[in-house]
This record gives sequence, structure tokens and C-alpha cells, in this order.
Amino acid sequence: MSTDTTSSSQLTENGKLRHLIRIAGLSRDFISRLLDKAESYQVPVGKPPARDTVLKGHTVANLFFEPSTRTRASFELAAKRLSADVLNLDVNMSSRIKGESLLDTIYTLQAMQCDIFVVRDASAGIPDFITTNVQPNVSVLNAGEADVSHPTQGLLDLLTIRQNKQALDGLVVTVVGDIAHSRVARSLSEGLGIMGNNELRLVAPKGLDPDPDLYPGAIIGNDIDKAIKGADVIMALRIQRERIKEKSSLMTNHEYLQKYGLTEARLDKAKPDAIVMHPGPMNRDVEIAGPVADGPRSVITQQVNNGLTVRMAVLAAVMEARTT
Amino acid sequence: MSTDTTSSSQLTENGKLRHLIRIAGLSRDFISRLLDKAESYQVPVGKPPARDTVLKGHTVANLFFEPSTRTRASFELAAKRLSADVLNLDVNMSSRIKGESLLDTIYTLQAMQCDIFVVRDASAGIPDFITTNVQPNVSVLNAGEADVSHPTQGLLDLLTIRQNKQALDGLVVTVVGDIAHSRVARSLSEGLGIMGNNELRLVAPKGLDPDPDLYPGAIIGNDIDKAIKGADVIMALRIQRERIKEKSSLMTNHEYLQKYGLTEARLDKAKPDAIVMHPGPMNRDVEIAGPVADGPRSVITQQVNNGLTVRMAVLAAVMEARTT
Amino acid sequence: MSTDTTSSSQLTENGKLRHLIRIAGLSRDFISRLLDKAESYQVPVGKPPARDTVLKGHTVANLFFEPSTRTRASFELAAKRLSADVLNLDVNMSSRIKGESLLDTIYTLQAMQCDIFVVRDASAGIPDFITTNVQPNVSVLNAGEADVSHPTQGLLDLLTIRQNKQALDGLVVTVVGDIAHSRVARSLSEGLGIMGNNELRLVAPKGLDPDPDLYPGAIIGNDIDKAIKGADVIMALRIQRERIKEKSSLMTNHEYLQKYGLTEARLDKAKPDAIVMHPGPMNRDVEIAGPVADGPRSVITQQVNNGLTVRMAVLAAVMEARTT
Repeated sequence: MSTDTTSSSQLTENGKLRHLIRIAGLSRDFISRLLDKAESYQVPVGKPPARDTVLKGHTVANLFFEPSTRTRASFELAAKRLSADVLNLDVNMSSRIKGESLLDTIYTLQAMQCDIFVVRDASAGIPDFITTNVQPNVSVLNAGEADVSHPTQGLLDLLTIRQNKQALDGLVVTVVGDIAHSRVARSLSEGLGIMGNNELRLVAPKGLDPDPDLYPGAIIGNDIDKAIKGADVIMALRIQRERIKEKSSLMTNHEYLQKYGLTEARLDKAKPDAIVMHPGPMNRDVEIAGPVADGPRSVITQQVNNGLTVRMAVLAAVMEARTT
Repeated sequence: MSTDTTSSSQLTENGKLRHLIRIAGLSRDFISRLLDKAESYQVPVGKPPARDTVLKGHTVANLFFEPSTRTRASFELAAKRLSADVLNLDVNMSSRIKGESLLDTIYTLQAMQCDIFVVRDASAGIPDFITTNVQPNVSVLNAGEADVSHPTQGLLDLLTIRQNKQALDGLVVTVVGDIAHSRVARSLSEGLGIMGNNELRLVAPKGLDPDPDLYPGAIIGNDIDKAIKGADVIMALRIQRERIKEKSSLMTNHEYLQKYGLTEARLDKAKPDAIVMHPGPMNRDVEIAGPVADGPRSVITQQVNNGLTVRMAVLAAVMEARTT
Repeated sequence: MSTDTTSSSQLTENGKLRHLIRIAGLSRDFISRLLDKAESYQVPVGKPPARDTVLKGHTVANLFFEPSTRTRASFELAAKRLSADVLNLDVNMSSRIKGESLLDTIYTLQAMQCDIFVVRDASAGIPDFITTNVQPNVSVLNAGEADVSHPTQGLLDLLTIRQNKQALDGLVVTVVGDIAHSRVARSLSEGLGIMGNNELRLVAPKGLDPDPDLYPGAIIGNDIDKAIKGADVIMALRIQRERIKEKSSLMTNHEYLQKYGLTEARLDKAKPDAIVMHPGPMNRDVEIAGPVADGPRSVITQQVNNGLTVRMAVLAAVMEARTT
């Protein structure tokens, strides 16, 4: 699969966003404007959330073939706050495993005039497959694709880093955890590469190292203390037990915290103003110590809030592409 | 069960639609006006769907005792596009199997001022049972009842045929598949009988033939090629494995396609302008060959779109009955 | 757990309702005003339900860790009729059993600007735990907490009694059934104690008696006929089989009806104008005879309707607390 070819199909002829399948292929300017739009939806804590009527009369179908509470809730609220009608479909994967059945579902939903499909699937390639089969007026948003891509997560991470570090350039960003199974790391890597000259360090327990070909330019290793040294940004990832076949190789929670957990002691080696991120759901005192998760350097709550406004920005952007 | 008696209870004293339980008992004029209303809600592909405020302030409860993705989504979107509040209740059948429990649920929902109940149930008689127990201001819409009735499906099929064949009269309509378990065939048969002088041919694999008493006037047989010859409309039905007890008697998919599938070769025996229908969900290359499903004679997508506007028309009609 | 200390945290400094966790600690005046507000939302049968825009732009998250159809539907419709956005989250308890995971969910939802959490949980103390961890602008409503508290049920029961008996004072109120596991009895007991000088009689089958310390002043016994004699209000409770460990001790349905069921014969011993209540879901001909449930003294449907308007009143009250 050539990134250039497939990603180009995310944009219309006029350079507007038609689908969002991956961050690769988007330009620095385009991403910056999306993040600006997301920021325009932010309001102070305790104020009612921003609302817009840009999706009024339109229908967003949340098509989740893989269970999700957080991402589905975030897309659902983003769509509702833009005045869309929202249809939630939690589809049993086993009965939909074949492409034909999936297509039947897609054809059905677009015949019901669903305009935007938000798709999460545990198999690689499903969002791309859908984009090649929908009508010209339908947009597909990837809400998590196997270990391949999670573009709205990547965008919310970029926005969170930009808000705390001003520029998305010249940064040392360390990601710790189960990199091998992480679509979060993949999308962040794509985004950091586009936005500036950043150093990405990936630290995984042995056996969970990523394929280096997927992370060109990244520094890959197993030594967490070395990787945290001097970092501006440290993101902890959870072990994705559901994707690991040999469960016997897994460490206990306590062992994991000792060897790969983000503890306060380890954080002392990062830059003094380093920020701590986690895409959630978090296992406190496993990949991240409780006091770190709740401490002054944690921007984890900000990530969640940015997730909502980034999804509003993406929904508004695909709607703009339809009307211009 | 006398059709005349029970179906008359679908209408108010003024001849307005109070409940929709079956097509039998509705007049030709009444059905024509419903289909006209549904057509008034249609918009060109790519345009935002039609909206109306006719159900604003009212509540539609989707009470599904049998799982459904497509029909529930269709009713949910129809109600939302008419500005209703929608309550989705996917009720575990096992705990609701007794009439008393069902009544308790109904009484509860009408005390919460739900105005319209959309009910799907695997047992025959449940929608009628509910109509006899609700308050005068509550309407019941049958969204699929065992192998007995699926009136909105029947109406959307009539509308699709009318749009393609101009009149609902003088047509040869062939239905192929598991007729014995098909509420779709039942409702279509009722509708075709009311609307004009049509010839209905029913073709089933042996063992899945319908009870002839349920299809007065229909030509029933097991020879698909003979039944397709000269047909204006051909509808394929899936085998309802979940309703068949002796699974050993089932053919393989390949065998089924050979013997009873809608293939291009078979279609050549129909009229040149014959249309191909399927109520979904479709099993491609089982009861219908992929190229037929996606070919120029297929109106399957149109059926889905008509399903939504027919349901809007029915919802609007029962609301009109309340206020006049 | 001191009732005074914890319950005081339900109110803001200005005496407005911030959280609703239990009825204990609310004043007579405060409860009266809540019930008045609920009544202001009532409309005649067959009229469209009352609507208000007081929650427009705000988000209510229904966080149900224990399954519920009725209470969730009631809160969902109450919130929608006040123009809120509603997010339904049916969370698998097993994966959320630890407080830390629960907190993670709460932090996530409030970062998505959910304003009001409606929480049902099978464990005692969860709603209180959440109130101590949310932002100042977030409200928590208890929608059922183990066998401890169900305050909106208590309020709807008070409203139903007030509507039928004019005053909430000087009444004899008899509750029959599985008192040991009943949060409904607990909340009603708290409410009756605050509102006036009422006599509460609790009758349970042996082994399902309540802890007397939880019901100060109540008359506790096992003789149903004695307890019904001269009662103004009789409420039947179902046996909560899911909370009883030794199933062998349970009676058959027929035995139960004979020994502890609310039959017409038994009702004759109550005051002539006594009313019959049940919080639902009802088991007809087990804890209550069918003719009693549907008879002239039954106010069970009124309870359900009051449930909706009481929940609207509570939602409106916590919203008022935010803005004043």
C-alpha cells in the first residue's frame, strides 16, 4: 500500500478534506489550520461547550466494529454539538467479517442518507476499503484502525503538544510502552514528521518493539531511562493484552511499573518543563504511576478535551468540503 | 384471526391511520396517498435529507425484542428527521416472553408519554396484543412480526415497484427463496392484491414452500426458471437459517446459488425491463449473484431509500390521526 | 458514614442542589419545592409532554454500571425534554470494578464537558465517591445505589402520595416485600421522616427483614395482614432474586402470593381510600395480584409519570445551582 497514492484520496480536487484515514499525506499548513479550528471550539472549564450548526440536517453514523467507550462518546458529542443527527451502530464483528457484508451495510446506510461514516475496526485496510466504495457525497473518518492508524488521536496529541510547547518543531518526544501494537504511536509519528524537525524516541519492552520500517528516523530501543533523558514530551501507552497472543510473556503489573512505568523518579531525567501524555484508557500504577498521571506535568485531561474539539474540527472540515 | 376485524382497528373513526400492523385492510387509495407522501420526502442523491417538524415534542420508542440493525436505523432516522425524540430499547426477549411483562413495559413507556411504539418481535400476535392495551393517544407500528407481517417493508416494496413500473397493476411479480418464513412476502402479497390485478409467483426450495392458504391467488412452485419467465419484478429472499430447525437439510451456498440463486443467466428469461429487488440483508452469491445485486436492473438501494421515506410517511400519518 | 456530613455536600453554599445522592439531609421545604416543580411539568394524558430549554447546550451522561431499562429511559427522556444532549454509557461493571478505572471514566467525561452524571451502580458508596472527585461545575445524580439509596424514586413516591393524600403527614405507609435489599424503601423512609409525622410499617418474609438501625421509628414485622390494617398507602416490592445468595430458601410464586402478595382480600383491611404502589418492574400474581395492580386503588402508572417529571425537576434544579 503506497502512502502517497492512498493518502492523496483523502482530499478533494480543491484540497479540502473529504476523508480522514491517516495523517500521512496531509500538509503542515493543512494540519495547522485544522488545529486552529479545533482551538476555536475551546471554551473555559465550566462554560457550556461550543456549539455550531454546521452539520444541521446531516447524519453521522458511528460504525464501530470494535468496542469503544471513549472514542465513540467523543465523536458522538462532537457531532451533536455541531447539530448533526447521530446514529450509533455497534456491529458484531463476527457477522461482518467479510467485505461483502460490510459493503452491504455501507450501501444501506448511504441509501438512508448518512453523510459521514465514523469507522472503527480491528482489521487493517477497512477504512480505505470503504472510501473506495462510497458515493461522492459521503465522507469516511477513521476512528481507529487495527495497529495502523488513529488520525484524530494523532491530531489531538499534536494540538496538546503545540499548546504546551508553542511550536511543533525541535522537540524530543518519547513514547513508552507497547509500540508494536500502537496505532497511536503510528499517527503521532506521522504528524511529528510533517510538522517539524522533531526527534521521536520509541521505547518498548522486548518483544513489543515496532517494525523500524514503519518509523523512519525514529530512535528505537528498550532503555526507558535513556529515552526519557532530556525529553520535552513523554507519552505512556498501555499494553494491549487483547492483541498479544503469548500471554505468558506478560509481566505482572508491579514488574511492569518497575521496568517500564512512568514514575516520578524517571520523570526527573526529562526536561524540567516536560509534559506527560497518555491516550487512555490508563492503567494507573502499571504503565504510569498514579501521582504522575495526576501530577502537574500531566496533560492527559487536556488531551481528552482536545479530542472533542479536534473531532468537531474534522467533522466541520469534511462538511465544508461538501459545500465548496 | 379475521383480517377484516383486526385490520379495521388500524384506522380511526375518521379513516386516519392509528396503528400500522399489516397491509391487509388498507384501501388502495389510502396506500396510494401514503406512497405519495413518502415520495414527497425524497430528495436527489447528495442533497441533505428532507426534514419536517411534524413530530416535534413527541416521542418515538423503538421497542425491538428481536435484533435489527437496518430496520431500527431506518425508523430511528425517520423519526429524528421528523423532529421526534427517539428512545431505543433493545429488550432481551427471554425476560419479556410473557405477555404480562410486555404489558408492564408498555404501560411504563406510555406513562412516560411515549406517543408511538415501533415494535419488532419474533412472536406472532404481539403488535396486535399491544394495540388492544394502549391508551387512545398511543400508536403502534409493526416493524417486523415473526413470519406474519412487515408492513413498512411491504409499502417500500410497493413504492419501489410503482416508481419503476408506473402502475401497480397488471404486473408479474416473482419472489424466490425461503417463502415459508417470510413476512416480507406476506406483506408484499397483501399489498399487490389491494393495488391491482397482479400475478404473484412464489418459488421456494422444497420444504420452504408457503402455506397456500396464506397466499390466495398466488402461483406456488419450486421451478425458479419457470417462475422468472416473463416477470416484471423479481425479488430474492435470504434463507432464514435462524428460523429453520433441521439445519442438515440446508444446501451449501454454492448449491443454493446454482439451484435457486438469482443469476444473470436466469434473469435473461424475465422481461427485458424487469427489476431485481431484495429486502436485505443480502448474501451475495447465495440467493443473489453479486453482479445481479450491483447490476443495472437492481433497485435494491432504491428500496432502502424508500424505506426511510415510507417510514417518515407512516410516522407523519399516525401523528396526523392524533390531531384531526 | 455520617449522614449529616455527606448529605450537606449535596447543596451549594447558597442552598441550591448540586448533587442528589440521598434524600436524607434535604429539608422539608426544599423537597416540597422540588415536588412543586415536578408538578409544574405535568400535562393531561394525551397532550404532548412538557418541554423546557433549561438544559440546552448542556450534556447529561447516563452512566449505568447496572442494567436498567425503566430508570435509564426516564432520565433520558427527562433530559431530552429539557433540551439536553444525552450520552448513554452502559458500562460493563467487571471492567470498571476498581475505583481508579471509574475515576478515569469520570475524568474523561468531564473533559468532554459532560455537565451532569446520572449514575447507577450495584456497589454502595460509588455516587459519593464520584462527587468527591468531580470538578466544581459537575453534578452527580444517584439513579440507584446498591441497597442504599434511590433518591429520585423516593421523590416520585412522595409526590404520588402527596397527590393522592393531599398532605405528607399523619399517614400510615406500609411497605411489603424484600425490604432487606430495597433502596426504594430506604429512600421512601428518609423522605417520609422529613416530610411529616408518618408511621412506616415494613413487612418482609423471614430472612429478608431490614436492619432496624437503618429504619429508626419504623414498625418492622413479618405479619402482612396486621401491617396492612388501617394503612393509607401500601407499596409492594419485588423479591430481588439477583441479590439473594441462597436461592433454595425462595418460595414459589404461588406460595409467595399466598403469604406476602398484595391481594384484593388483604387490601380490604386497609383504609377504604388506600392507594397501592409498586416501584416496578412488577411480577403480577407474585408480590401483587393482577387485579390489584390494574385496579382502582393502583397509582402505579402515576408513579411512572411522576418519575419523569421528578427527574426533570431534579435536572432543572442542578442546572439552576450552576447559574446562581
